[in-house]
Amino acid sequence: MSGIFITLEGPDGSGKSTIVKLLSKYLEEKKIDFIFTREPGGTPIGEDIRDIILNNKNIHMSPRTEALLYAASRSQHISEKIKPALEEGKVVICERFVLSSLAYQGVARGLGIEDVKSINDFAIEGVNPDLTLFFDVDPIYALNRKTNKKEGDRLEKEGLNFHKEVYDGYKELISMYPENIKVIDASKSVKETFEQVRKEIENIL
Amino acid sequence: MSGIFITLEGPDGSGKSTIVKLLSKYLEEKKIDFIFTREPGGTPIGEDIRDIILNNKNIHMSPRTEALLYAASRSQHISEKIKPALEEGKVVICERFVLSSLAYQGVARGLGIEDVKSINDFAIEGVNPDLTLFFDVDPIYALNRKTNKKEGDRLEKEGLNFHKEVYDGYKELISMYPENIKVIDASKSVKETFEQVRKEIENIL
Repeated sequence: MSGIFITLEGPDGSGKSTIVKLLSKYLEEKKIDFIFTREPGGTPIGEDIRDIILNNKNIHMSPRTEALLYAASRSQHISEKIKPALEEGKVVICERFVLSSLAYQGVARGLGIEDVKSINDFAIEGVNPDLTLFFDVDPIYALNRKTNKKEGDRLEKEGLNFHKEVYDGYKELISMYPENIKVIDASKSVKETFEQVRKEIENIL
Repeated sequence: MSGIFITLEGPDGSGKSTIVKLLSKYLEEKKIDFIFTREPGGTPIGEDIRDIILNNKNIHMSPRTEALLYAASRSQHISEKIKPALEEGKVVICERFVLSSLAYQGVARGLGIEDVKSINDFAIEGVNPDLTLFFDVDPIYALNRKTNKKEGDRLEKEGLNFHKEVYDGYKELISMYPENIKVIDASKSVKETFEQVRKEIENIL
């Protein structure tokens, strides 16, 4: 596949969506053929799955069901959208991917990184990111920023301890896979954060 | 766990649902504490997942997404309904379980029995059936019986070749796991079919 696959990872409220807007503008100006997409969701079937995952009525969802639903949504996303775009030579920028599942379900939900990785390997058919940017910010600060805005969904409503474990999970994963994950200091201003992202993107394009 | 877990398997239209009604009556008369359930579905979250799987609008669903959605529904079914009932010592009768996924997605969809078994092992947390009854009937005959009744869902609408491959898949699986699967000749009359089922159930109770 001739395209480049870039994923953005980090806690809720770490500023990924804000940077995506600046990044889109930057890539348009550079006349780079790109698509932006996000998980869970990214396809009509994936959006239906997303609705089940995030719906506040589904408080009894088991951690394994949650992990399998994320993998199902991802599998559809890969086959219907990401893989075709990469085959056409596009740059694909995706907010959240396998690393989110490893941090949230593998570590914070306690299912184990290896088992969650295994169901995701089934889902992605070998389509791994060329570059992952981790938006590093104190999870307490990030959570406040996010939940001040609106009522949270089922995952955003998890307690602070859960979000701390997600953050620790990400840190563990970065030490496991240091060669493919670049850490962005997202505690800086939007301008300074974007500058770090821009440099990493330029390096790989 | 002190309960007994029995699953019913076989092609669409092999008469499982008809036999379930007779079996329920039989178990009630024997004053046996049982629940009957089915897949995909069996829980509110599972029913939502079932709607996505079977919806005719989802013709672009990838085989891997389909397999992961079945496993997600199953995982919720296990944790919310089947495991608690078995822990209370009940007999649990479930129409379709892992074997369906191995035949439909593993063989007929071509994903491979081993890979599909692996995501299902993640889903079921070691809760395997004590007895599986396979309703053996010519898939052409079964399909006609089923689709004469009503417009089919996304899986029932698959062509005859698909349903033949499902049947061959079941046969392959029976030869792989002969110790746990009992074959019921479902081409017989309802009365004769039920008699075979009753004998197998009595053996295990």
